[in-house]
Amino acid sequence: MPRLVDHAERRSSIIETTWQVIADRGIENASMRDIARECGYAAPGILAHYFPNKTALLLASYELICQRTNERIAESTVGKRGLTALRSLCMEIIPAEDLTTVEAKVAVSFWQRAQSDEALRRVGRDALSHWHAEIMGCLAEAQTDTPTGRPADPDLFTDELLNTMMGLHITAMLDPYAMSGSRQRRLIETMLRRVCVSDAS
Amino acid sequence: MPRLVDHAERRSSIIETTWQVIADRGIENASMRDIARECGYAAPGILAHYFPNKTALLLASYELICQRTNERIAESTVGKRGLTALRSLCMEIIPAEDLTTVEAKVAVSFWQRAQSDEALRRVGRDALSHWHAEIMGCLAEAQTDTPTGRPADPDLFTDELLNTMMGLHITAMLDPYAMSGSRQRRLIETMLRRVCVSDAS
Repeated sequence: MPRLVDHAERRSSIIETTWQVIADRGIENASMRDIARECGYAAPGILAHYFPNKTALLLASYELICQRTNERIAESTVGKRGLTALRSLCMEIIPAEDLTTVEAKVAVSFWQRAQSDEALRRVGRDALSHWHAEIMGCLAEAQTDTPTGRPADPDLFTDELLNTMMGLHITAMLDPYAMSGSRQRRLIETMLRRVCVSDAS
Repeated sequence: MPRLVDHAERRSSIIETTWQVIADRGIENASMRDIARECGYAAPGILAHYFPNKTALLLASYELICQRTNERIAESTVGKRGLTALRSLCMEIIPAEDLTTVEAKVAVSFWQRAQSDEALRRVGRDALSHWHAEIMGCLAEAQTDTPTGRPADPDLFTDELLNTMMGLHITAMLDPYAMSGSRQRRLIETMLRRVCVSDAS
């Protein structure tokens, strides 16, 4: 079915162009016509065939980013478990590298729209739940491997880690010098070290 | 100078209406004409006299929120110091109550635009720096009062606390049931307790 394959590929290609538009100038500064032009379509109608409006395009952009992030997490944690796997997971989510910085910009644009759109909120919530379960899994492995290697309250630790990673999407964007990639990694390392020493709190 | 007072009051009143519009339906779903109507102005020109465009209005809305938050922090920390003051500070920032939830929505809308506007980013950065300094001050007081009452690396702890609080703006919006007000308070309490027991990490 060559036409279906072509449709999916073209869809991905539009989304990747959209990521760049969001990263360069913000989605609110680009019309569907502008994005169509960036994609190389003379008529914006072609874009509308794939995505009826900006919200649909932003939703698809965010979904593909979550999917790609999860694929990278799966790749980078192959053969790893416990805290080693958890460290790799965090590195694919925090905006400490060029790729994850672009992804973070799309996420922030998406979150802004999710505020007034329940369907978008659900997608954002699903991504958080998925990561929450993965982090809890890593913490359970850490405990199996080292009986003290797990925080007193894994669920609370997971929330703290997730909130810190989401917060980095904001602080690294507002202040990329203070919240540099190395600073972000150090913050995550410090949090993970608390698991190793068995947080008594 | 009655005219000046009137100008400032009307400006605040426009901003407060804008907060409500952002909280109810998102700023991207409201035109300047819509906001003017919500303010009770028949002609959108009156609004433009105060704010030339949505970005200017959003900037002013965010600035007033930071100012009000800081006023509340000043009030709620009167006569307090150290961790007691720090706890009060956090409670005015996290979106655990109705008022701070509305403020968080304005902040998320603001952050989205700040991504492609250096002037907005600077304002966001200033708010973070201000809170960072206040938190460091509380931690220094905690150490003076109890020599062990301070984390090994106060600067890193401050970043962790700030990132968690910014992250809560996102997670509580996406999943208000999982990240309820009481859950948010518990998260902050757990972090502050680590200071009391002198975080060994």
